Amino acid sequence: MEESVRILFLPENRYIMAKPGENLLKAAMNADVHINASCGGSGSCGKCRVVIEKGEVKREPNLKLSEADIAKGYALACQTTAWSDLEVRIPLESRIGDKRIFERKVPEPVYGHLLSATDWEERLPEWELDPATQKIHIVMDPPTLDDNTSDADRVKRSLSMEAGMKDVVIDYPVLQRLPNMLRQSGWDVTVTVLDQGEELRAVRIEQGDTTARQSGIAIDVGTTTISAELIDLKTGEVVASASDYNAQVAFGEDVITRIIYATKGTGLAKLQSVVVGTIWNLIKTLVEKADIEYCNITHIVVAGNTTMTHLLLGLNPKYIREEPYIPSATSFPWIKASDIGLRIAAGVYLYAIPCVASYVGGDITAGVLASGIFNTDKMTLYIDIGTNGEMVLGNKDWLLACSCSAGPAFEGGGVRHGMRATRGAIEQVRINKSNYEPMIITVDHHKPIGICGSGLIDTLAELFLAGIINEKGKFNLDLPTDRVRKTDTGAEYVLVWAEDSATRRDIVITEVDIDNLMRAKAAVYAGIEVLLSSVDLDVSAIDELLIAGAFGRYLEIDKAVTLGLLPDIGYEKIKFVGNGSLLGAHLAALSREMLSKTKEIANTMTYLELSMNPSFMEKYVSALFIPHTHLDDFPRVREQLEEVRREQRMAGQA
Amino acid sequence: MEESVRILFLPENRYIMAKPGENLLKAAMNADVHINASCGGSGSCGKCRVVIEKGEVKREPNLKLSEADIAKGYALACQTTAWSDLEVRIPLESRIGDKRIFERKVPEPVYGHLLSATDWEERLPEWELDPATQKIHIVMDPPTLDDNTSDADRVKRSLSMEAGMKDVVIDYPVLQRLPNMLRQSGWDVTVTVLDQGEELRAVRIEQGDTTARQSGIAIDVGTTTISAELIDLKTGEVVASASDYNAQVAFGEDVITRIIYATKGTGLAKLQSVVVGTIWNLIKTLVEKADIEYCNITHIVVAGNTTMTHLLLGLNPKYIREEPYIPSATSFPWIKASDIGLRIAAGVYLYAIPCVASYVGGDITAGVLASGIFNTDKMTLYIDIGTNGEMVLGNKDWLLACSCSAGPAFEGGGVRHGMRATRGAIEQVRINKSNYEPMIITVDHHKPIGICGSGLIDTLAELFLAGIINEKGKFNLDLPTDRVRKTDTGAEYVLVWAEDSATRRDIVITEVDIDNLMRAKAAVYAGIEVLLSSVDLDVSAIDELLIAGAFGRYLEIDKAVTLGLLPDIGYEKIKFVGNGSLLGAHLAALSREMLSKTKEIANTMTYLELSMNPSFMEKYVSALFIPHTHLDDFPRVREQLEEVRREQRMAGQA
Repeated sequence: MEESVRILFLPENRYIMAKPGENLLKAAMNADVHINASCGGSGSCGKCRVVIEKGEVKREPNLKLSEADIAKGYALACQTTAWSDLEVRIPLESRIGDKRIFERKVPEPVYGHLLSATDWEERLPEWELDPATQKIHIVMDPPTLDDNTSDADRVKRSLSMEAGMKDVVIDYPVLQRLPNMLRQSGWDVTVTVLDQGEELRAVRIEQGDTTARQSGIAIDVGTTTISAELIDLKTGEVVASASDYNAQVAFGEDVITRIIYATKGTGLAKLQSVVVGTIWNLIKTLVEKADIEYCNITHIVVAGNTTMTHLLLGLNPKYIREEPYIPSATSFPWIKASDIGLRIAAGVYLYAIPCVASYVGGDITAGVLASGIFNTDKMTLYIDIGTNGEMVLGNKDWLLACSCSAGPAFEGGGVRHGMRATRGAIEQVRINKSNYEPMIITVDHHKPIGICGSGLIDTLAELFLAGIINEKGKFNLDLPTDRVRKTDTGAEYVLVWAEDSATRRDIVITEVDIDNLMRAKAAVYAGIEVLLSSVDLDVSAIDELLIAGAFGRYLEIDKAVTLGLLPDIGYEKIKFVGNGSLLGAHLAALSREMLSKTKEIANTMTYLELSMNPSFMEKYVSALFIPHTHLDDFPRVREQLEEVRREQRMAGQA
Repeated sequence: MEESVRILFLPENRYIMAKPGENLLKAAMNADVHINASCGGSGSCGKCRVVIEKGEVKREPNLKLSEADIAKGYALACQTTAWSDLEVRIPLESRIGDKRIFERKVPEPVYGHLLSATDWEERLPEWELDPATQKIHIVMDPPTLDDNTSDADRVKRSLSMEAGMKDVVIDYPVLQRLPNMLRQSGWDVTVTVLDQGEELRAVRIEQGDTTARQSGIAIDVGTTTISAELIDLKTGEVVASASDYNAQVAFGEDVITRIIYATKGTGLAKLQSVVVGTIWNLIKTLVEKADIEYCNITHIVVAGNTTMTHLLLGLNPKYIREEPYIPSATSFPWIKASDIGLRIAAGVYLYAIPCVASYVGGDITAGVLASGIFNTDKMTLYIDIGTNGEMVLGNKDWLLACSCSAGPAFEGGGVRHGMRATRGAIEQVRINKSNYEPMIITVDHHKPIGICGSGLIDTLAELFLAGIINEKGKFNLDLPTDRVRKTDTGAEYVLVWAEDSATRRDIVITEVDIDNLMRAKAAVYAGIEVLLSSVDLDVSAIDELLIAGAFGRYLEIDKAVTLGLLPDIGYEKIKFVGNGSLLGAHLAALSREMLSKTKEIANTMTYLELSMNPSFMEKYVSALFIPHTHLDDFPRVREQLEEVRREQRMAGQA
């Protein structure tokens, strides 16, 4: 046996040296080669398929890998160890989608209207461009023997006289630079003052008048995607935007696997540095796009779910995951960006929008802010569906929130050919009700690789309407089509034949996939029902339903209603918020008033713990049908169904 | 020529390798070998005498070094470079006095009473043991699904309920430890809360009830000496004390040379790390003496002059030295001890007592606090004499301060055989008025090495009373004694013959020395007069004269009055404060009220810039006599003088 082995990854053509017995997923991580790993390396998701092109490996037996797969050289990276020099190819489906997705124009939703900053005039109370940091230009008289107050007091005196700012605390690094800066500039400087709520703090000093150059950054720190905006704080204009995958994805796709990683060894520090790395790259992109200097940036506002906020700030997320689900903190003082390892420029502070509970985070607080729910008379339901479905019900008088663990199905997890909405993902599906043939559209019209969330919802609704699956999600195996078939692992429907797919394998949706999706949609719907019933309302009380999150943008509302994911209220009441989290961070970056509103909103919101709620399980079980046990609650779906069945009967008779 | 040379220092027996041409003072510093260097290596003080026992050196010509000295192997380290392997001996007089001085019992002053904490009852307004940090023991109910507030909010809730502390900000490091700490302790913890004035901050969390163990540290950061106390914050008792030389002494003896060093290259960082090193060693000593744990320490209060405070906090002191003498800052927010490199325990913060101006520092503010001037009706004059003479005049209604550059004479600088009050320093002197023979007492009764401040004042007063020098400080060369002699460098009086001295050289006081001392005393006295006259008072208005500083403790008041250093008011009005700076830091460490009084005092105090004052120079010139041009202002001295002269005449006639 050799002392060390050389593991070469293709197509990256990158290798590392490792000890014999090294796990391939770990080796890939060390080599900075990305392989999808949704289950954190547990062998349960079966996504980290690689092809061993050369060399000797040992595979743990795993149900996700058939004998035929092994014969072709396939292995699950997380279940495989290296015992000689290797050449390992990462096949297309195991690699993350490329970044072009982030440059795609946001598609207009099929129904409803995508909420944006232009709606704020109507939805928000009047607010002013008045960011938490202000640049104050001061010109002082030089000291004399008669006026020999200290440099610090001279600056404070000017801030008080010029800007009415009393008792400004001067940050030590500023104090240290003060004497030379004042004299080199001829007593003509610009001081950046941060309003931390309790106190004003001078965080930066620059020569001359730099007040015209001031930018803020708003960031949505998503579990999967991080989106950032550079805002000119003098005009309020968004000067540049950028998005990228959260590099933490390599350590597990959902918050739970990240929490587990964070609580082992130096995992927390690793995850923090990785997400800070992504943010740093985004800021670099923004600065280049906008052609500004780093030192124009004076503050950052981030919104993320509770776990993402913890990981970014280096707070222990362990107990978020364990009953009774307690975060370290839900509100966060302004922190120096450099204290989390983000070294942009001197004196940049960061504000994290407060969370409500372990599973209702700052992203939801931000969304409630941006969509103006806290300011409306209308009874509003705000839904953000991802791995967790977070929901807020309320208006300007009260806000009630809950979170249900929808599972990763809507993000492509727990679904055999599920994937995120990247190039090659099937995002729209129609199924012919006569011959059961599908029509599919993929992201970027690329050869299909898998199915993303909106594609899955389409598929399920269409399978149901076509009568291919029944209200329980079970396949009708008696239909005259070879697309429905029975295999060792259960029944399935073939959406794409191998010859048409980018992966050269059939892309199917299985009964197991459908079960997972049914559970996910049932959890969301039951959550909505619990929220409503806890205040003695039903779906008819909803004046407006707001759908947030990237998922929401591609969703076809009628399909979601057909499936019973969303309540069957008029489509006209449903609107898309888009990235509510980013919109909220943006607002808070622009306005002290809006920033302090985030605290108010988080404090006001009552969190309803569903696992405590006796009626949740009952409502959940009732929702495990398409669209629902109580078809009366879905009058439009019933009509639609009756019409389709009538057409099918007529076609059958023809 | 060799590539590198080996420089061995004796008697330390420590060597370093250096490049040929290396400066010996620099080499010694690098080797951590102490050589006195009062002038920062400029060649002007002539104190860094070393003996080249072996090897080849190059000496810069210097007036401080005679041909005879060179013949004996003497060299000034700062003016000498190494050009071969060397053996360099540091003679006794060039080494710093040993540390035993710090263990000497503080001698009771000859007159008056040494002020101490026991006087506070009478002098200070009522105050309570109520330090800026409080330890709060809280036992919480563990979270449940019904009570799922975050860990941070649970702690805040308890602090509010148990201690009435609202809106406590939790420091990030505490927040990071919170989740595990709470659970490991069974929700039974002690939180240390720091009252920063504007906000309450949770700075530490510990398992269980640690409230019984809480200590504070008070430090006087002197230019020469640093003194520290460990105080039990539960009882207010001083548990241990320790003092040591400020290790910055190796970089120059006075604040001016330190400022110059600090403004070159990384000098500031070096000086900061060096003083922090001294403080760290003192704290180590305190902790060992008191047999406590480092983590018992919850906060530190320091008092130092403006330059020392700048150097400790890493603030740029450059403009303290340049007209119009502007410090970076005079008040300082609480700072994390670890931010200045002092890593004692988690969450220890440090408060620096505010300064008034560039040459009236936190040590004076502290002294005014500790001596209760801010609380008395009595017209009080507070004097702290060192390199600078700082003076405060006032009472509870107003405070007026000034500083006069006395020069280092009273600390032994600028005086040929001057030294600090360490072992072998002549500290008391009497001179027989008939035969002009001296009687001397040295510190620790060690063989005399040189003369310290109190010894110099004694010597001058006695030389004057004996008629050896006249009122202008000039020698009478016609006296029948070989102790008064004329040399190339002027007249001098031999205090100790070579055979009696530890240095095997005559210990003398020269006319140049006397000139320097006259200038120093004149500056102090003129300062006192300017303070008084600026409020239309004269010395008779002084109800109490307080002398602070280590110098004060050894001073014989009658000699100081004879010399005209102190005004000729009744001795009963004169009291010794001892280390007023440390006493004030001690008070501020014990009581939030006293701590905030330091801000009030510093703000109240009006600083009088003497270099601006038209009458200062006039008063200074008048004071360049012993005791003064206006002998009428010194009635007791005149009486004394008349009596001595009468006795001398009678002895002469006998």
